[in-house]
Amino acid sequence: MTRWIRTGATLLFGAGIGASVSRLPSVRGGAEEEERPGPLLGLLGSVPLVPVPRVQASELTVSPGGSGTLMKYGFPSLANIKTRESYVTSYDPRTRTASWVIERLNPASLNGPSDRKYCNFKEDDSVHVFHRSTNADFRGSGFDRGHLAAAANHKWSQKAMEDTFYLSNVAPQNPHLNQKTWNNLEQLCRSLTKHYLNVYVCTGPLYLPRQEADGKLYVRYQVLGRNHVAVPTHFFKVLILEQADGRGVELRSYVLPNEPIDEKVPLDRFLVPIETIERASGLHFVPNIMKRTSSLQAITAR
Amino acid sequence: MTRWIRTGATLLFGAGIGASVSRLPSVRGGAEEEERPGPLLGLLGSVPLVPVPRVQASELTVSPGGSGTLMKYGFPSLANIKTRESYVTSYDPRTRTASWVIERLNPASLNGPSDRKYCNFKEDDSVHVFHRSTNADFRGSGFDRGHLAAAANHKWSQKAMEDTFYLSNVAPQNPHLNQKTWNNLEQLCRSLTKHYLNVYVCTGPLYLPRQEADGKLYVRYQVLGRNHVAVPTHFFKVLILEQADGRGVELRSYVLPNEPIDEKVPLDRFLVPIETIERASGLHFVPNIMKRTSSLQAITAR
Repeated sequence: MTRWIRTGATLLFGAGIGASVSRLPSVRGGAEEEERPGPLLGLLGSVPLVPVPRVQASELTVSPGGSGTLMKYGFPSLANIKTRESYVTSYDPRTRTASWVIERLNPASLNGPSDRKYCNFKEDDSVHVFHRSTNADFRGSGFDRGHLAAAANHKWSQKAMEDTFYLSNVAPQNPHLNQKTWNNLEQLCRSLTKHYLNVYVCTGPLYLPRQEADGKLYVRYQVLGRNHVAVPTHFFKVLILEQADGRGVELRSYVLPNEPIDEKVPLDRFLVPIETIERASGLHFVPNIMKRTSSLQAITAR
Repeated sequence: MTRWIRTGATLLFGAGIGASVSRLPSVRGGAEEEERPGPLLGLLGSVPLVPVPRVQASELTVSPGGSGTLMKYGFPSLANIKTRESYVTSYDPRTRTASWVIERLNPASLNGPSDRKYCNFKEDDSVHVFHRSTNADFRGSGFDRGHLAAAANHKWSQKAMEDTFYLSNVAPQNPHLNQKTWNNLEQLCRSLTKHYLNVYVCTGPLYLPRQEADGKLYVRYQVLGRNHVAVPTHFFKVLILEQADGRGVELRSYVLPNEPIDEKVPLDRFLVPIETIERASGLHFVPNIMKRTSSLQAITAR
């Protein structure tokens, strides 16, 4: 854990999550209730039924990496939700980037004919012009337009890949980080699809405080361009690893500083307790996940 | 405007709002549509009516400073809305303070038997413990617990006044500012109730960037205590002044730096175009207000 202790002293805050996860409310079964005919059903018996088109169950199957099932474990927050072909996101109009982006990876979503060369970064015109980042904001800034949901995760559909190029799915990222260690982390996510039924990946920015010379804690981050696009101090990835045989899910949560990282440092060094991310980001992951499984394993170090 | 140009260079960003307000979509009438009996009404004719208790229209009158009519001009954002006796607020779990708080002032709300000496600052236990500020976070910090919705605006009800003491209605504020110029601005809001039917006041924190020695723009703010409560760099107040005779509303929007301000500086010096606040905060005020009135006057300087 040496790395993130140095760059974000306050991450220590959440130490000991192992204990606190086990103190969370005990697991509940599914919330579905059996349909019972209520008293109104009798009253409405005289109302003619309006026929609805029949749909074959097979037609309802979601696409391999599509956003259709992303609500399964709940959303980390509920503000400004946007649903795209390949991900669901919550937009933060103050920082001009997402609060989080969630996507689902599996072998089928990783393969397909989509080609990145047909994709271009584009403004998200579903965001008001006051609160939207533009390509011009990044130009000459020294920062990459770092994907939150990665393009290479969505080869299954050209549209799905193109949707990752909305600037609302992008945050200013150190180029070395983006092209080296962050890329390795994205590849790790993809390689985990060999061992799990589905790999849910939730990615977002963090703005962590650090101690300054006066002994006090300050959050400090650069803003880019005319629209003041916030440069995160760190990024998180929360992985929900779904086992094939109903044995439950595993969690892995990473925090990486937005700066060059020596590729020799193993990715496991960036594993953090999920509470750390929850406290720093204002989000919640565990409660939603806890409701869905009787067997949750939080992996915070190996 | 000298003051805020010096302390928040980026406020200049929104200059020229006068022009842009007049370019907003033209005024629409009320959205109410006349009730028409639809085809279902016939079908449901055989369903027995369930009697509901009769309510006298007079019983539905909202309390003088109550939160019942605060949605009239829309909300600046829709995340984590909480409705209290005296205000409506949107909570920001990342900064551990409100994004905005809106309240309604009129002569009736300013008078009453409520006494501040029975009020104590209290944690808001509707906020998850990870994202909540506590009194301990402020202790010894050198910052006041600055009310966003002011206690003295809600003398009409002890409960209404007490609700302003939730720490979710509080942000760390420079003590000199809180006790001098900010207090004067709160008094100005109250005095405006002599000239307007209702004074809607929306208050919130800002985290504005400033240029550092390297020529780049940075947002930098202190965080307090174990829960890292953000200390805003500035505060805003947007006033919606409702005229008695249906002549429309006036807008006044202020930004004050979170630092000592010489009381000799007239409050009008802190008037800013509302677009400035909208861009910096990620919020929207004007579109909602424009829909409600045919006569809007934005006061940005005198």
